[in-house]
Amino acid sequence: MHRWSKLFVPTLREAPADAEVASHKFLLRAGYVRQLGAGIYSYLFFGNRSIQKIIGIVREEMNAIGQEFLLPGIMPSDVWEQSGRWTTMGQNMFRLQDRKGAWLCLGMTHEEVMTDIARKELRSYKQLPQIWYQIQTKFRDEPRPKSGLLRVRQFIMKDSYSFDIDAAGLDKSFDLHDAVYRKIFSRCGLSFVAVEADSGAMGGSQSQEFMVYTDAGEDLIASCPNCHYAANMEKATSKLGAVTEMEPTGDGTPELVHTPGKAAIADVAEFFQIDPASDIKTVAYMAEIREGKETKWVPLVAFLRGDHFVNETKLTGVAGASELRTMNAEELETYFSGPAGYLGPIGLKVAKTLHDGGVNVIVDLGLENRKNLVGGANKLDYHFRNITPGRDFTWTVLADIRNVAEGEGCPQCGTPLKVAKAVEIGHIFKLGYKYSESMGARVLDPNGKEVTPIMGSYGIGIERILTSSIEQNNDENGFWLPPSIAPFEVVVTVTNIKDEAVMDAGTKIAAELEAAGFDVLLDDRDERAGVKFKDADLVGIPYRVTVGKKIAEGTVELVTRAKATSEEVAVADVVATLKTLIS
Amino acid sequence: MHRWSKLFVPTLREAPADAEVASHKFLLRAGYVRQLGAGIYSYLFFGNRSIQKIIGIVREEMNAIGQEFLLPGIMPSDVWEQSGRWTTMGQNMFRLQDRKGAWLCLGMTHEEVMTDIARKELRSYKQLPQIWYQIQTKFRDEPRPKSGLLRVRQFIMKDSYSFDIDAAGLDKSFDLHDAVYRKIFSRCGLSFVAVEADSGAMGGSQSQEFMVYTDAGEDLIASCPNCHYAANMEKATSKLGAVTEMEPTGDGTPELVHTPGKAAIADVAEFFQIDPASDIKTVAYMAEIREGKETKWVPLVAFLRGDHFVNETKLTGVAGASELRTMNAEELETYFSGPAGYLGPIGLKVAKTLHDGGVNVIVDLGLENRKNLVGGANKLDYHFRNITPGRDFTWTVLADIRNVAEGEGCPQCGTPLKVAKAVEIGHIFKLGYKYSESMGARVLDPNGKEVTPIMGSYGIGIERILTSSIEQNNDENGFWLPPSIAPFEVVVTVTNIKDEAVMDAGTKIAAELEAAGFDVLLDDRDERAGVKFKDADLVGIPYRVTVGKKIAEGTVELVTRAKATSEEVAVADVVATLKTLIS
Repeated sequence: MHRWSKLFVPTLREAPADAEVASHKFLLRAGYVRQLGAGIYSYLFFGNRSIQKIIGIVREEMNAIGQEFLLPGIMPSDVWEQSGRWTTMGQNMFRLQDRKGAWLCLGMTHEEVMTDIARKELRSYKQLPQIWYQIQTKFRDEPRPKSGLLRVRQFIMKDSYSFDIDAAGLDKSFDLHDAVYRKIFSRCGLSFVAVEADSGAMGGSQSQEFMVYTDAGEDLIASCPNCHYAANMEKATSKLGAVTEMEPTGDGTPELVHTPGKAAIADVAEFFQIDPASDIKTVAYMAEIREGKETKWVPLVAFLRGDHFVNETKLTGVAGASELRTMNAEELETYFSGPAGYLGPIGLKVAKTLHDGGVNVIVDLGLENRKNLVGGANKLDYHFRNITPGRDFTWTVLADIRNVAEGEGCPQCGTPLKVAKAVEIGHIFKLGYKYSESMGARVLDPNGKEVTPIMGSYGIGIERILTSSIEQNNDENGFWLPPSIAPFEVVVTVTNIKDEAVMDAGTKIAAELEAAGFDVLLDDRDERAGVKFKDADLVGIPYRVTVGKKIAEGTVELVTRAKATSEEVAVADVVATLKTLIS
Repeated sequence: MHRWSKLFVPTLREAPADAEVASHKFLLRAGYVRQLGAGIYSYLFFGNRSIQKIIGIVREEMNAIGQEFLLPGIMPSDVWEQSGRWTTMGQNMFRLQDRKGAWLCLGMTHEEVMTDIARKELRSYKQLPQIWYQIQTKFRDEPRPKSGLLRVRQFIMKDSYSFDIDAAGLDKSFDLHDAVYRKIFSRCGLSFVAVEADSGAMGGSQSQEFMVYTDAGEDLIASCPNCHYAANMEKATSKLGAVTEMEPTGDGTPELVHTPGKAAIADVAEFFQIDPASDIKTVAYMAEIREGKETKWVPLVAFLRGDHFVNETKLTGVAGASELRTMNAEELETYFSGPAGYLGPIGLKVAKTLHDGGVNVIVDLGLENRKNLVGGANKLDYHFRNITPGRDFTWTVLADIRNVAEGEGCPQCGTPLKVAKAVEIGHIFKLGYKYSESMGARVLDPNGKEVTPIMGSYGIGIERILTSSIEQNNDENGFWLPPSIAPFEVVVTVTNIKDEAVMDAGTKIAAELEAAGFDVLLDDRDERAGVKFKDADLVGIPYRVTVGKKIAEGTVELVTRAKATSEEVAVADVVATLKTLIS
C-alpha cells in the first residue's frame, strides 16, 4: 500500500503565471510534472503513474488487433531520404550528426522504419494483413512549444502501421483501428468525437481524427447537432444560405468608384451600403511548388466572399503547393499593379491551368453564380462595382477554400453547424501506397504477381489523453480523473494520525480496499485535515474515504470528487460502495 | 490466444556473417530484432514481448523501494553545464541544436535532471530519503558499436537515484538496491555475480557491478573460488607469489650491458637468462590533467614487472588524470633521451609530487622490495642489470596499477584467482555529493541547518538481461529463455493442421493452458512438422507441447528446451505437469 508520507508529491498552492490552460496549471499544481525546458517535461510519480495506466489500456486494446514492436528513437538519414521526407519534414525534425559526421534524426513518426522492415521481410500475400504498433517517445522541434503538455517537443505516442494486399484489406485495418480507438478512449473516460480530416497533403484517401472538445484546444471542429456530421476545419464544408444580390448600376458592367481610404472590408461595405457578403475579398500569396527536386515560388491569389476566411490547408491542397507565404509589396506591384486594400480580380493575367506561368487564381465556391459584387480595382483608392464572376474575370480553379463558420448549413442535412475548439487525441489514416511504393515494398499476390502492399498509419497521443481528461474534469480546486487512468482510485485520508484509533482504522480500511483490488493511497501525513482535503481535491484521485472521529460510530465519509458530494458510509460497506461507484 | 499463423516472426536459417556472438546471431535468427543502423536496432514482436516482460519484473521490484518517474530523453544543455558534464561527457554524448540554435543533448544518464528536481523541490530532511527511478531510452554515441545488442547507441535502462540526509542513509539506499537487484536478476533467471568496481573516476565511495559470465563479455572479472571475493579488473587486486631474485653481478650496482636488438621483454629475458618477472617493463604516457577549466598534458611513466600489464583505469586514477595517451617518439626523446624498447627507470628527472614539473613516475606494488632487476638503459641497444628500486631510482607514487592475472593469489584468502569474461547487467554506485553539491541541492537538517543531501545512482541495462540470458542458454539449434522473460512460456505445436482431430486437440490444449494462466502460443502454421520443431527450438520458448497423431491415444509430447528432453504426457496432465516445471 502506498503511504503519502513516503511519497514525493510536490503540490503547489499556486500555478506559475505562464500556465494558462487548466491541464497545465493542474499538472504542475498536483505535482504530476515539472518543466525542464521549452516543451520538455519530466513526469513525477503521480504523472507517470497515470501515464502508465493509459499505456496499459492502450496496449491491452491494441494487442487485440496488432503486434507490438519497439523501434529506435534515433535513426540514420537514409530511410528518410528514400521516402523523400528528409527534405519535406523541414525544421520540425530534430537532426544531428554522430561522432563520425553521419546524419541522424530523432523520430517524429515511423512510417519509414516500418516500411523498411516490411520491404525486407514480407514476401507473400500469405503474410498479410499485418498491423504493427509501438508505444514510444517521439521528438518534434515545435516552432512555438506551449500550452503545457498540449504542444511539446517530446511526447509518447502509440503509433501503428498496417500492411494489406488491397484497398478492401486496408478498409478492414482502418475499421479495426476505428473500433479499438473508440474502446480505448471510452475506457479512459473521455467524451470524444470522431471527425473527418484532410488527407490530401499526405496523399492518402481517408483520414479521421478523434477529438476532445475543450477551450484549451487549438483545432476547430464543425459539427452538426442534427445528423452528427463532424469534420475539422481543414475538411469541413457547409451549405451557404441565400444571399440577396445587389441591383446593378449604370449599364451593369464594372464601374470604377473612387473609395479614398476604404481599404478594409467593413469600410468598403459601409461605403457601398452593402453586406460584406457582396464584397470580394482578395488574398494574395506566393506558393512554393515542388517539381522533382526543384522548388519554385509562383503567384497564387484567392478570391472569396468578404465575410469568409481562407483555410490555408484547403488552399494549399487545391493549389498543389508545398508552402504558402503572403505576397510582399514588390510582388503585389508585379502581379496587381495595385496596393494592398485595393486588390481585385479584374485585369489579372490568369493562369489557364495551375502553374502555367500566369497568376494562379483560386475562387471559392461561395462566389459561384454570384453577381453585381464589389471588389478592389487594383488601383489606390478605387473599387469596382457590378463585378460578376465568370463574366468579368476568370479563374484557374473554382473550389472550396474557405473556413466553415458557425451557423452555416450542415453539408448533409442543412442544420446550422456548431464550431468549437478541440484537442486531437488520435488520428487514423489511409496512407495508400506512398511509402510502400517509394521505398520498394513488394509482395507476391495469389497469382504470383508482384504487387505493392497498401498501408495505413494510426496514432494516439498518450499524454493528450491525460491532459484532455483534465480539461474535461476540473473545477477551481483541482481535477478528477476517471478511475481507470487516475494515479490512485481512492485516497484514504486519516484526519489526525496522532489519534491512534483513527490511524489504525484508516490503515485497516486502506488495506481492505487494497485486498479488494483497489489502487489505494493512504494519506498518513502529519498535516492538518484541511491541508489533506485540499490536496485530495487537487490531485485527480476520483474517490476519497475520510477516516475521522466518526470512526467511533463505525462510519467514514466517502467523497465523490467529480460531483463534490459526500456520504456517510458504514466501515463495513466501504468496499461494496466503492465497487458500485467504480464499476 | 496468439496464433503463430497470424504473427510476424521472421526466423532465419542463417545469421548474417557479421553476427559473432550467440545473442546477436540468435536475436536475428529468431526474429527478435532487426538492425536499422550502426548500433541501432528495432525490436519486433518476440523481442519486444521479452523486453516488456523484463521491464515488468524490474518495475514490480523497483516499486517496492522507489517511485517511478519519466524524465525527458532530450535535454537543454544548461543543467549539464552546471554539473560540469557538458564538457566531460565528450563525444559519447549526442548533441544537437534546435531550430533556434539552442544546444540540446540526448540523455545518457539522468543525474542532472533528477538533481534539478531535487534542488527545486526538496526542502527538509523530513522529505528524505527519496528513491526515484525511471525505465527509459538512453542514447550514447559509442565509438565502435558492436556485438549485436551488447554495445549499441540506443538502449533501455532502469536508472534510479537516491537522496539521503547522510552517509548512513545512503548505505541503506545502496543496500536496498543491492537486494532488489539480486531479486530482479534471479527472477529473470540469470546466473550472476556481484563484483567490486572502481568508483574513483566519478568521485564516489562505493561501486558494485552485477555481472554475467560469458565469453561475449568485454569486461574481465577476477574471482576467488574459495572466499567469493570478486572484482572487475579496474578494482581487483592480488597477492603475488614469492620471486627468486637474481644474484648481483660485479659490485652489485647497475651495470650497462650491450643488448643489440633485444627490445621485447621476452628477448631480454632470454638474453639475460632471467624470468620476465625480474625484468622492468616501462610504459610511457602523456596524461591530461584538468586544473579548473584548464587542461594540460604531462609525462607519466609506469614501471612494473615484465610479466605484468598496466591497468589504465587504475593508472588514470592514481595519476589524477582525465585521459592518457602513449608518448610519441619526440616526447620519448625529451623525457628519456632513449628509444622505445630500451626505456628504463634510471636517470629520469622524477617529479617529487604529482604534476610538479618532473616526470610523473608510478611504480607498481609488484616492484616493491625487489632487487637486482634488469631494465632499459634509455640508450639504444643497452640495458642495465642489478637495478634495485629505491636504491637506483625513485618514484612519485608507488601503487597498484597492474591487471590481476589468473592464478595470482586472492587478496583476501590467497587462493589462486580465476579471471573470466563477463557482461555488466547492473551497477549500483554511491555518488556522494558530486551533483547535489555542484548543482546546489540543499535541505534543512533536524537542527534547521542547511545541508547537502548525499546521492546514489543505480542502473540496469534492460536489453542486457535478454542478451546475457541468451548467452547463458543456447546450443547450436537456438536458445531458451526462462519462462519469466520468454516471449511465450509454452508453444503448442500442431504437427499437421489439416488433420482436424489433431488441430482441434491442439487448439483445445492451448486454450486450457491459457485459461490456467500460461502465456501460450499456438503454432497453427501450414508448415511441415520439421519446420515447426526447428523454429520452436530456435526462438527461446522454454516449453513445447507437440500435438500429433498420438492424440488418438490421449497423449502429447512435452519438450523441455533447456534439457532437450521430451516426455509423453496424458492430455489431462499437461496443465499440471507444466505448472510443476515452471514453478
